[in-house]
Amino acid sequence: MSRALNFNAGPASLPFAALARARDELIDFDGSGMSVMEHSHRGKVYEKVHHEATALVAELLELPKDYDVLFVQGGASMAFAQIPMNFLEAGKTADYIVTGAWGEKAVSEARAMSKAANGGEVHMAASTQQDKTYVRVPRQDELSLTPGAAYVHCTSNETIHGVEYALGPSTPFPKVQAPLICDMSSDILGRRVDMTQFDVVYGGAQKNIGPSGVTIVIAKKSMLDRGRKDLPAIFQYRTHAENKSLYNTPPTFGIYLVRNTLAWLKSEGGVAAIEARNVKKAAALYDTIDGSGGFYRCPVDKACRSIMNVVWRLPTPELEEAFVKEAEAQQMIGLKGHRSVGGIRASIYNAVEPAWVDALAAFMKDFAKRRG
Amino acid sequence: MSRALNFNAGPASLPFAALARARDELIDFDGSGMSVMEHSHRGKVYEKVHHEATALVAELLELPKDYDVLFVQGGASMAFAQIPMNFLEAGKTADYIVTGAWGEKAVSEARAMSKAANGGEVHMAASTQQDKTYVRVPRQDELSLTPGAAYVHCTSNETIHGVEYALGPSTPFPKVQAPLICDMSSDILGRRVDMTQFDVVYGGAQKNIGPSGVTIVIAKKSMLDRGRKDLPAIFQYRTHAENKSLYNTPPTFGIYLVRNTLAWLKSEGGVAAIEARNVKKAAALYDTIDGSGGFYRCPVDKACRSIMNVVWRLPTPELEEAFVKEAEAQQMIGLKGHRSVGGIRASIYNAVEPAWVDALAAFMKDFAKRRG
Repeated sequence: MSRALNFNAGPASLPFAALARARDELIDFDGSGMSVMEHSHRGKVYEKVHHEATALVAELLELPKDYDVLFVQGGASMAFAQIPMNFLEAGKTADYIVTGAWGEKAVSEARAMSKAANGGEVHMAASTQQDKTYVRVPRQDELSLTPGAAYVHCTSNETIHGVEYALGPSTPFPKVQAPLICDMSSDILGRRVDMTQFDVVYGGAQKNIGPSGVTIVIAKKSMLDRGRKDLPAIFQYRTHAENKSLYNTPPTFGIYLVRNTLAWLKSEGGVAAIEARNVKKAAALYDTIDGSGGFYRCPVDKACRSIMNVVWRLPTPELEEAFVKEAEAQQMIGLKGHRSVGGIRASIYNAVEPAWVDALAAFMKDFAKRRG
Repeated sequence: MSRALNFNAGPASLPFAALARARDELIDFDGSGMSVMEHSHRGKVYEKVHHEATALVAELLELPKDYDVLFVQGGASMAFAQIPMNFLEAGKTADYIVTGAWGEKAVSEARAMSKAANGGEVHMAASTQQDKTYVRVPRQDELSLTPGAAYVHCTSNETIHGVEYALGPSTPFPKVQAPLICDMSSDILGRRVDMTQFDVVYGGAQKNIGPSGVTIVIAKKSMLDRGRKDLPAIFQYRTHAENKSLYNTPPTFGIYLVRNTLAWLKSEGGVAAIEARNVKKAAALYDTIDGSGGFYRCPVDKACRSIMNVVWRLPTPELEEAFVKEAEAQQMIGLKGHRSVGGIRASIYNAVEPAWVDALAAFMKDFAKRRG
């Protein structure tokens, strides 16, 4: 088998080791004569996997003990509604900082949820939308924050627009008074981030964590305690914390694959090691873009360029189409930009191998030489 | 490998052919150089699988064209809240028929949801609870139905109590005027049922359909049209119908396994063939219970005995414990009754092989002879 060079935005490439392990034990897990997905979620065999996955998240992110790690369902798309359902009580305001399409969606769903379920107000605390697109995060002085807000919501990395908060040790998230909630779907575990800046972090698994169908929620216990209590049990994040994500049947095989993926990440040296690799991968592409004499053009401000989703344009849509087609012929998959923005996008999550990125950079140079 | 005799209640046994197929193509799906779970949900490779799974549900259940088949997330537990969120508008009443623990939970979540989101009233139209347990479904004359109800909700098979509506060709569900909504998690596709009796049917996949993490919703298009429109898009079943279950990233690998499971079911002759097999499996156990001279005792009324979850008691809790332990030593897994009711339970879904049931019946006879 020749493995594809997979630049999909999500579902995305998974570590080969995690997949091979799944294949090897698919029909007989741990000598039990059953697949892990045939085990009861209340049985010891599965529970061990479940708790190992939870513990790996906490360990790899260096979470303090006052944080809970939950595995739930529905993706970030469900969290867009479930976060305000839990935390935006009547009489309060939630501040949303919008830096791309996913932030827009979070606002829209929060507004609908809040109206439907007697919640509070949704306030756009900042939007960097300009000329129908997004190329940067807001400056601190652009934030219009509400005193006493229920929470501030942000998106650390906008997958479609390739706009990312720096969030390095010297560039923490802007100080806010209210609890800070972050959709970290597409960059969690891809770089070192001080998680204690955030009160709730959530994300779909299908970028750096595992397959689609698993949603991660990381939350301060004190925040979960504050959540609305008059909701159905299934919608209260508290319920899932109290039951260690076993309130109802979890997506067991998905969580098993999360376990495999995170065990691989740990074996590779953890988040610090993968960050170094990811930074190099991103630099290889941005350097190629910036060194192309204008043939390739990344619209994103240099300080806000994503190390997970690198987006760029070619001089014409026809050239972009030819680029994607030629790349595919070389087994480079998933390079077409999101249909809402066009252009090219290379998603280079943790499991995307440096050699694939080098091959892509080489192809870019060759294509520019031939067609530039 | 010696395959376990898996009587788990869910997650449960899956067809070996479905698992072996998943193993064989896990790291390289269809020659693509990628796992199916690494493919984009917007790509042709995955979409083919997705639509095949949807079409197999419709074909196997003989659904008319005015029904939609959706794959969503959250399990039946989320549907307990999402159904009233969508269909119980203010000023209306929903009637619930309760025949076991899952029906109780559906009522409780519906009440909370309706209060939190300005919905209507929840009315217990019938409950067959007696002496803290359930042994039957209600007679038609026991139903206290509300004229003009938003819907009537029922549970076709109660997994914990082993109580099932007959629903054969000569025993349709009692006639109700309002739209009929049914939690069919644990018996869907296990026997022939005229689906046109129901306006909405839902269930977690982890019994007869596939692995946990996939939820199926089958609904009349006209019913979906009537659903509340002021909800977040993610919570409106309409959204998922309009987008063919691709509104947001679906649990792609789970749906792939549903495809494998249903392809196996079709190859075995479909629902009619599997029903004949299931009826024989259930009879083997009930006959052993009834022929044990009182050593084994099934508390459920004969007309309401589940063909999916066979529950029974032994004379003492000590004997029940010994029974489970000895069975496990013979690789018979999952026979302990639900912690809320005790006793023994054998879940004998579609993928449970007749030979396993025969082995269990033989063991029961031997155990009774030795310990009776």
